Amino acid sequence: MKMFKAGLVGVTGYAGMELARLLASHPSMRLVMACSRAEAGKRLGEYYPFLEHMPGADVVISVFDAKQAARECDVVFLAVPAGTAMDMAAPLLEAGTKVVDLSADFRLRDPAVYSAWYRHEHTHTDILPKAVYGLPELYAAEAARASLIANPGCYPTSVILGLHAAIKNNLVHADDIVVDAKSGATGAGRKAAVGTLYCEISDNFRAYGLPTHRHTPEIEQEVSLLAGQDVRLSFNTHILPLNRGILSTIYTKLKNPKTTLDEVREAFKATWAHSPWVRVLPKGALPETRFVRGSMFCDLGLVVDPRTGRLTILAAIDNLCRGASGQALANANLMCGLPVGAGLDMLAPLP
Amino acid sequence: MKMFKAGLVGVTGYAGMELARLLASHPSMRLVMACSRAEAGKRLGEYYPFLEHMPGADVVISVFDAKQAARECDVVFLAVPAGTAMDMAAPLLEAGTKVVDLSADFRLRDPAVYSAWYRHEHTHTDILPKAVYGLPELYAAEAARASLIANPGCYPTSVILGLHAAIKNNLVHADDIVVDAKSGATGAGRKAAVGTLYCEISDNFRAYGLPTHRHTPEIEQEVSLLAGQDVRLSFNTHILPLNRGILSTIYTKLKNPKTTLDEVREAFKATWAHSPWVRVLPKGALPETRFVRGSMFCDLGLVVDPRTGRLTILAAIDNLCRGASGQALANANLMCGLPVGAGLDMLAPLP
Amino acid sequence: MKMFKAGLVGVTGYAGMELARLLASHPSMRLVMACSRAEAGKRLGEYYPFLEHMPGADVVISVFDAKQAARECDVVFLAVPAGTAMDMAAPLLEAGTKVVDLSADFRLRDPAVYSAWYRHEHTHTDILPKAVYGLPELYAAEAARASLIANPGCYPTSVILGLHAAIKNNLVHADDIVVDAKSGATGAGRKAAVGTLYCEISDNFRAYGLPTHRHTPEIEQEVSLLAGQDVRLSFNTHILPLNRGILSTIYTKLKNPKTTLDEVREAFKATWAHSPWVRVLPKGALPETRFVRGSMFCDLGLVVDPRTGRLTILAAIDNLCRGASGQALANANLMCGLPVGAGLDMLAPLP
Amino acid sequence: MKMFKAGLVGVTGYAGMELARLLASHPSMRLVMACSRAEAGKRLGEYYPFLEHMPGADVVISVFDAKQAARECDVVFLAVPAGTAMDMAAPLLEAGTKVVDLSADFRLRDPAVYSAWYRHEHTHTDILPKAVYGLPELYAAEAARASLIANPGCYPTSVILGLHAAIKNNLVHADDIVVDAKSGATGAGRKAAVGTLYCEISDNFRAYGLPTHRHTPEIEQEVSLLAGQDVRLSFNTHILPLNRGILSTIYTKLKNPKTTLDEVREAFKATWAHSPWVRVLPKGALPETRFVRGSMFCDLGLVVDPRTGRLTILAAIDNLCRGASGQALANANLMCGLPVGAGLDMLAPLP
Repeated sequence: MKMFKAGLVGVTGYAGMELARLLASHPSMRLVMACSRAEAGKRLGEYYPFLEHMPGADVVISVFDAKQAARECDVVFLAVPAGTAMDMAAPLLEAGTKVVDLSADFRLRDPAVYSAWYRHEHTHTDILPKAVYGLPELYAAEAARASLIANPGCYPTSVILGLHAAIKNNLVHADDIVVDAKSGATGAGRKAAVGTLYCEISDNFRAYGLPTHRHTPEIEQEVSLLAGQDVRLSFNTHILPLNRGILSTIYTKLKNPKTTLDEVREAFKATWAHSPWVRVLPKGALPETRFVRGSMFCDLGLVVDPRTGRLTILAAIDNLCRGASGQALANANLMCGLPVGAGLDMLAPLP
Repeated sequence: MKMFKAGLVGVTGYAGMELARLLASHPSMRLVMACSRAEAGKRLGEYYPFLEHMPGADVVISVFDAKQAARECDVVFLAVPAGTAMDMAAPLLEAGTKVVDLSADFRLRDPAVYSAWYRHEHTHTDILPKAVYGLPELYAAEAARASLIANPGCYPTSVILGLHAAIKNNLVHADDIVVDAKSGATGAGRKAAVGTLYCEISDNFRAYGLPTHRHTPEIEQEVSLLAGQDVRLSFNTHILPLNRGILSTIYTKLKNPKTTLDEVREAFKATWAHSPWVRVLPKGALPETRFVRGSMFCDLGLVVDPRTGRLTILAAIDNLCRGASGQALANANLMCGLPVGAGLDMLAPLP
Repeated sequence: MKMFKAGLVGVTGYAGMELARLLASHPSMRLVMACSRAEAGKRLGEYYPFLEHMPGADVVISVFDAKQAARECDVVFLAVPAGTAMDMAAPLLEAGTKVVDLSADFRLRDPAVYSAWYRHEHTHTDILPKAVYGLPELYAAEAARASLIANPGCYPTSVILGLHAAIKNNLVHADDIVVDAKSGATGAGRKAAVGTLYCEISDNFRAYGLPTHRHTPEIEQEVSLLAGQDVRLSFNTHILPLNRGILSTIYTKLKNPKTTLDEVREAFKATWAHSPWVRVLPKGALPETRFVRGSMFCDLGLVVDPRTGRLTILAAIDNLCRGASGQALANANLMCGLPVGAGLDMLAPLP
Repeated sequence: MKMFKAGLVGVTGYAGMELARLLASHPSMRLVMACSRAEAGKRLGEYYPFLEHMPGADVVISVFDAKQAARECDVVFLAVPAGTAMDMAAPLLEAGTKVVDLSADFRLRDPAVYSAWYRHEHTHTDILPKAVYGLPELYAAEAARASLIANPGCYPTSVILGLHAAIKNNLVHADDIVVDAKSGATGAGRKAAVGTLYCEISDNFRAYGLPTHRHTPEIEQEVSLLAGQDVRLSFNTHILPLNRGILSTIYTKLKNPKTTLDEVREAFKATWAHSPWVRVLPKGALPETRFVRGSMFCDLGLVVDPRTGRLTILAAIDNLCRGASGQALANANLMCGLPVGAGLDMLAPLP
């Protein structure tokens, strides 16, 4: 069996850490390059003791070099900040290496929207049209033919999967949506900062980034495409005292206030019948972040409130696995002609 | 200085535990009676080692007896389940003892609404009209004259204080409100149950009780009174992996979408200018549950989103102190002619 | 490839939950029977939503019946309380079904010791001699031939693996050992109880069970066997505010106080050279419970203090996986002639 | 009533935060100066929103200036790193201002020991002899006459109070003591660092600093003084996934292995009979960090194991309050002629 060779730039962040974990158990892909300026020279197993005794533990962390990466790797994952990734992607693509970009650099089709929300110019608008928005349930065929994947944001993954069946089946008003999203602290990244110290996050709950979280235009782009109209929605984010998990509570108004829960459920189940990672929970059940921890699942719960004519959709994912690195690996699988789920059959280690 | 004598029924629950803590430091009120069927016979300091060496530690836990309670106490706190409290309150009131009921039994003015949401008849509709809804910022004068306080629910305290200035100043549509509320696990009570074990709550986040949480009619009653119209709103609850704290994120639509954040802030600051426990945070600051932990404060944060014409109000309280026992003590203070804040000047022990 | 059929008695506890997780991903073993009196009749995927869409999710929970179990299963895991397991094991063994007992019923070779520490008689002393103490690094050959496995306790697994190389290489005094062990809350089980509620465990740390924890004789039995002398040690347990993980800090006195850290490390590395699950950490590194979470690894750290002549050994395992269900599955693998690590290559999902 | 004026250098750290909290509620001391280079210019209530609406909230954070501090303050708290404090203390003392130093700079009587463990020279050996080691139960009289307090370390506070009665009553061998100490994460300070991020500490447990924690010589100094002999002990530290609290489990050997638990308890109770902050727990009860959270209490639990002839002492304190800022305030109270417990009657907000 062919073993594909993977490179990983940004190995010290949480997305990089998760990719290193997933690649260590992958049946047909191996980590052969791991990059970080700060930790260059260390064995991976020395830097991440939890990977010791596993494949990839002997890779020595190096400084990113595009030519070397192109020479050694079939696919390169960019787990670096927005604004940094696009300059790394360009030479790799030119050399014919496949790229999965976990940053936001290729997610927004309109570079003007990108620069408005991310506060810097897009320097590679030429390759932007090549990028496929890598949400496997929606764009698997395109991803399989792609050389560049714009890996979706964590919050957008939960919200787009959550809203998809409701919009597609024309159940709700697309112009009156409120998303109350909550994320675990890995979403804040692994940079040294007082605000994300243990003692600042633990035993605490707060909102942040209101009302201008950068994932807003990404969500609006995809929901607008689906709705066939220009959608603006209210997207609001909170930080939870836990490591992994996003729960997005999505408030919508039913077009027909007499729509029943059973009707909504049937529409959702039909839409997702062939998507094993999307689980429409049984009637009355609600998603919990622990049920998807460390996995690729997106659990959906549905609530119809006849008193107010609202449909509330709850969507839970693991922000690091499904919302970043696992999804990136699924995209790499597709690009390499492997089954989308290769190396991704992890279950939540409960509790 | 006169020392008022307090009785506490339901000392083993979290609200009872918090009342025991607060009374142990109160300058002019002493715990003289603590009731629990299951733990009767133990010294309070034995049952709660953290109270040892403090006033009240030598009280022996007893089985509730209305006559004895009326004889020994100036005021009795009922920290017992809804449906149980009303039968205890009646004989105490008859004997002239003041009662603060922390349950829901006297919060809803319409007994039909009570029985619809709480699933049992109200057996003391005669004394229901005597009850004052004990939110000190709104009803201090009435509380000072009352013999029976219906102590507000934890969620309603946060939502009513959060919405008050917006509704009163006619800033938002009262008929289009979504509340996304999150509570610490003490809100689930102290009964042995698998669902609230450490390993089921920790490292997890989920919604619950959708769409029929019992605090809905209480919130609607008070908001309707203020709005002067019959209000239905969408109230949704989640459980946080932390002990204490509620953050309610309240989504409203501005009547005038051009209203600025400064205008909203001025209205809020004017409304709460004389309420030291309500803190309208500085521009750009958002409430955090830790900032109010263990205290009487209600912190309010305000966000105006001109893209969507929405005003989002964030309200944080400590569900046990402000949302239950501290508020009960404030009401008892008022009933006894003491300063409303006597014994209640605790600050959050951060972090 | 043959698929072995596994039965699981006690599916609702944490050890049962973990076995259900592990079996759902096992390449050559399938859950065909899951027993619980309280939850009989439910689909496994309904009871454990995190298992939905996975193999085994359609198994219907049933009440244990020895004959049926023997008919349907190649191997049965008993994840039930001590004192209950032995009566279940007997008829299964008689019917020729292999049994892995996760309780303490067959761990202690001397039934008098069992009854002294567990406070009830051993009712199946006849089959006791058949039981193999299932620590794979020490007894793999015996396990491969066994019909009954006494699966080691969680704490003993960490302490025995921690001490093994030190005792075997005669580095320390076997009669002067203090173990300070700390465990995550899953160790306390999944029974409804006030003491293990979220709000009682979180934000707290305490010792418990001093000085009479039931794992003491199990540790002493195995250490005595190895030391060739009757060993009494001081074993002390604490409960951590986290779900999974044991860290045992083991204090020993060097026989030769001039022994260097390098010498100790060499002895440990040589002892464990062929045991991939035991990782002797690099010099200066100390084990962390998160590095072994959800996995079969036992990480060992070593500290020599020349000031006091002590060798401190730190051993970390996942109490549920390595300390219970994963180890049980490794034993079942051995009994079935499968590789000991089949289905057990999980890595800690960090962070 | 006279209000004493307090200055606080290092207001942004956790000890500074805790002092700010305590001073905000103190009946006869007020914060008049708060220093931090990084945050100079901000109102205290802006920097710490939880202090808003409280006394001291309007103090503007400033850069430390010894002359100004001496002019404005009766007492100055130095909550700054070891090595920094001594240079600040000297001019304050010269100007006649009382100083409570929360760092280690004046704790060790022998400057050679200081420089060996803290890796820099002691630059103020002249004032070192003036310093009183501020453990109120042991040195209250000396503190009342002092101008300079060496405020004890957090771990030493727990260990010295834990061992005191056992050594003083000659119950145990002073030369065979192992301390296994566990601390909450506030002990690691509030500096931005990857190692203390939420996601690195949460859901994890590990040892650190073995075998050379800097609190070792401080403990040995005080225990040696008490024992009347040169004591070396094994002191080992771990970090807990919680904010506040230390539990030290102290393993000792009884001089007379037949000593009973009752005898030990009597000795401890007699020793601490007049120390309201030291609570010798009832027989069978063990300390929990939550019982002392945010308070001045030191809870002691005692275990005698006749199997091994050991006495295990468990000591719990709040590392920030009793182990740092609350103790500092107690010392300031003594220096100002106030009751030692003024402003320090907080109870643990359970849970």
